[in-house]
Amino acid sequence: MSDSARRELRPAGLSRRRFFGLAGAGTAGVIAAGAAGGVIGRATAEEPATSAATAAAAATEAVPFTGAHQAGIVTPAQDRLHFVAFDVITDDRAELVAMLQAWTAAARRMTAGQDAGEVGAVDGGQYAVPDDTGEALDLPASGLTLTVGFGPTLFTTDDGVDRFGLAARRPAPLTELPAFRGDAIDPAISGGDLCVQACANDPQVAVHAIRNLVRLGAGVVSVRWSQLGFGRTSSTSSGQATPRNLFGFKDGTDNLKAESPKALDQFVWVTDGDPGADWLAGGSYVVTRKIRMRIEPWDTSTLAEQEQTIGRTKKAGAPLGQRDEFDPVDFTKQVDGDFAIPQTSHVFLAHPTNSGTAILRRGYSFVDGSDGLGRLAAGLFFIAYQRDPATGFVQVQQNLRTDAMNEYIQHTSSAVFACPPGITGDDDWWGRALFS
Amino acid sequence: MSDSARRELRPAGLSRRRFFGLAGAGTAGVIAAGAAGGVIGRATAEEPATSAATAAAAATEAVPFTGAHQAGIVTPAQDRLHFVAFDVITDDRAELVAMLQAWTAAARRMTAGQDAGEVGAVDGGQYAVPDDTGEALDLPASGLTLTVGFGPTLFTTDDGVDRFGLAARRPAPLTELPAFRGDAIDPAISGGDLCVQACANDPQVAVHAIRNLVRLGAGVVSVRWSQLGFGRTSSTSSGQATPRNLFGFKDGTDNLKAESPKALDQFVWVTDGDPGADWLAGGSYVVTRKIRMRIEPWDTSTLAEQEQTIGRTKKAGAPLGQRDEFDPVDFTKQVDGDFAIPQTSHVFLAHPTNSGTAILRRGYSFVDGSDGLGRLAAGLFFIAYQRDPATGFVQVQQNLRTDAMNEYIQHTSSAVFACPPGITGDDDWWGRALFS
Repeated sequence: MSDSARRELRPAGLSRRRFFGLAGAGTAGVIAAGAAGGVIGRATAEEPATSAATAAAAATEAVPFTGAHQAGIVTPAQDRLHFVAFDVITDDRAELVAMLQAWTAAARRMTAGQDAGEVGAVDGGQYAVPDDTGEALDLPASGLTLTVGFGPTLFTTDDGVDRFGLAARRPAPLTELPAFRGDAIDPAISGGDLCVQACANDPQVAVHAIRNLVRLGAGVVSVRWSQLGFGRTSSTSSGQATPRNLFGFKDGTDNLKAESPKALDQFVWVTDGDPGADWLAGGSYVVTRKIRMRIEPWDTSTLAEQEQTIGRTKKAGAPLGQRDEFDPVDFTKQVDGDFAIPQTSHVFLAHPTNSGTAILRRGYSFVDGSDGLGRLAAGLFFIAYQRDPATGFVQVQQNLRTDAMNEYIQHTSSAVFACPPGITGDDDWWGRALFS
Repeated sequence: MSDSARRELRPAGLSRRRFFGLAGAGTAGVIAAGAAGGVIGRATAEEPATSAATAAAAATEAVPFTGAHQAGIVTPAQDRLHFVAFDVITDDRAELVAMLQAWTAAARRMTAGQDAGEVGAVDGGQYAVPDDTGEALDLPASGLTLTVGFGPTLFTTDDGVDRFGLAARRPAPLTELPAFRGDAIDPAISGGDLCVQACANDPQVAVHAIRNLVRLGAGVVSVRWSQLGFGRTSSTSSGQATPRNLFGFKDGTDNLKAESPKALDQFVWVTDGDPGADWLAGGSYVVTRKIRMRIEPWDTSTLAEQEQTIGRTKKAGAPLGQRDEFDPVDFTKQVDGDFAIPQTSHVFLAHPTNSGTAILRRGYSFVDGSDGLGRLAAGLFFIAYQRDPATGFVQVQQNLRTDAMNEYIQHTSSAVFACPPGITGDDDWWGRALFS
């Protein structure tokens, strides 16, 4: 690793970011920053905000980087996403480990609202390369979380090579996902040896974080694909309002939530006794799927067609046959001799009652410009966390083969990563248990 | 036009959007909505905010849709962008006019924080196609502005056809931009017959607005290209903090600002006596350029190289040789026998003192995923407004041919549009003076 990377490992100084209002005007205060890795404030979005001002303040605060689990999984979903998958381009295990250590140090700083490193580097002054790219210098922490994952190909390449002596450490559930009917997977935006999910309430903060990890990884990793998302499409906390996806429907009403720790233990967290638990206990598996939405046919379909496809009303988000969003989903209720919630609706097929399982969804909407055929290239970048992909996403997705929504969507990318547990101390780093 | 489009022209009802906090949690109040086209609140971002709460409130409010000039030009630059260019696919002038009328009615509603039309359409109930796609139902106005422009090819196609009887109305300055040294223009993401710039403080609100205009334009226009931007890279009001671009530098310190009406009259607004003033007086010309930034070589250059390239310091944004951001730019100052601000720096060459002109910049940063070569596909979506492209963007860009920054950037798209003046009354519509 370079001098620059080693400097990342030194204790950090005070935050040099001033706290700006959301409209970019006015100075509201200064973040009281502690030593590197210290917990600076606490996101309060778990609690229903009583005013927009409270919500705005929570949106700018720091989320603790350390804990039993990585932040960014059950953390109340922030509004913006930058997700990146990397190919590891070195065969040198020591280089990879040094980069993961440098990444952890930088992530510790950036999630606390600090820079990845000095802009005017201490050692070299203005004739050194800055240790931070600078575009987030004036921005608060903005709820930034950075969540790392290890793909199947980190353990054994597609050619069967065990580059880093990790093959025996691969948990059996960490394997490429099966093909599903209707898939149109593009390998160029699928898979990857490593991933980092950056979520924040300011996209510039998320992009800055990913960009500085890319910079620190020069010569060790190469960007395989990356995806920006602008609107969270799930709540992960009961204190959050349910957002709407690009079909215009509330999404994630019945998602797993941070306030249900028993359900999280059952469905999200890898536990002692599970495969790979020696390094993965307290972690989870993330599945990502880029899902193109066929916006134009959807926008010319009737309200009835849309509601029968989803299984909920559009305005209120109530289960069909009910009135309010959080009314119980009743799959036995009939209206005029038909089931109120059609058996081909997305809610019917995806609901734990019928899929037999549950996943923690954490997706974001995207618009990637246009598709060259006169249409917006828009959809959902689906992200889900689970204890085992086979009994999580794969089981749900197989149950969706008769989903009426399939007419309006197509999956174009796929990836799976094992996300290690949280960082627990000042000298911990991403992957330490795996590489020990 | 369809029933749906005609419905857009009816007076609008009250807003059905509730006002949510920025973190999506908590209800802070209800927007008091008036009749269609009424002014609902007033964006206060021109005035320095005294607290984050004030700034957050301003970020959710409505910007007036009507006025002498279109909103979205000198309006304090919102944080997010969705820009779209359209091809007109009909040769029927009446269809085009009807769509522009329907667009105006929908824009009037959406910028006031209302829906484009009813989700549960009044006439057809649930068996009609909704007049709004729904994804912004619960969101406030979020400072949304919608700014329309007419491209040269609307007047005469590339094949020389005058489809709509407009050829004689084309102002001479509205012509394709010349080629510049170093350009790598992709025609697929350049040009267009029409454009709409949507700016808002919530990207979901900007995307919703463009998507509903696309929906209303079905059969009349086709999306040629579209671009999302996540971070404004200029201030357009002296009350705004100067943002940073993806080079990590403050950008737009010396931009034209809303508080300098005489400079705007000189450099931005088309005036009586100018070409096309019979329909364009009070309007402006917008130039868009997608500028790929070569992030990786930039991130491995020294601080000195970066600062000499820009002509300002990275942290403070001060002109080289000065201390603070707003210290005067002094091109005569010398340090150790050299000019403090190099004559090849971007600031030196772009500054009105040396370019002889001024433009109102209003660009946004973008990241379009990765480029397939291991790099982030990132850069600046440059937008500039001027009274005449020849004496505005073209003159500045020609002066930048020796810009040291050219090593780190490449222009990949180009477009120019004439933006008519503002909507002045309840029965006015985008393009009325042009089509009359």
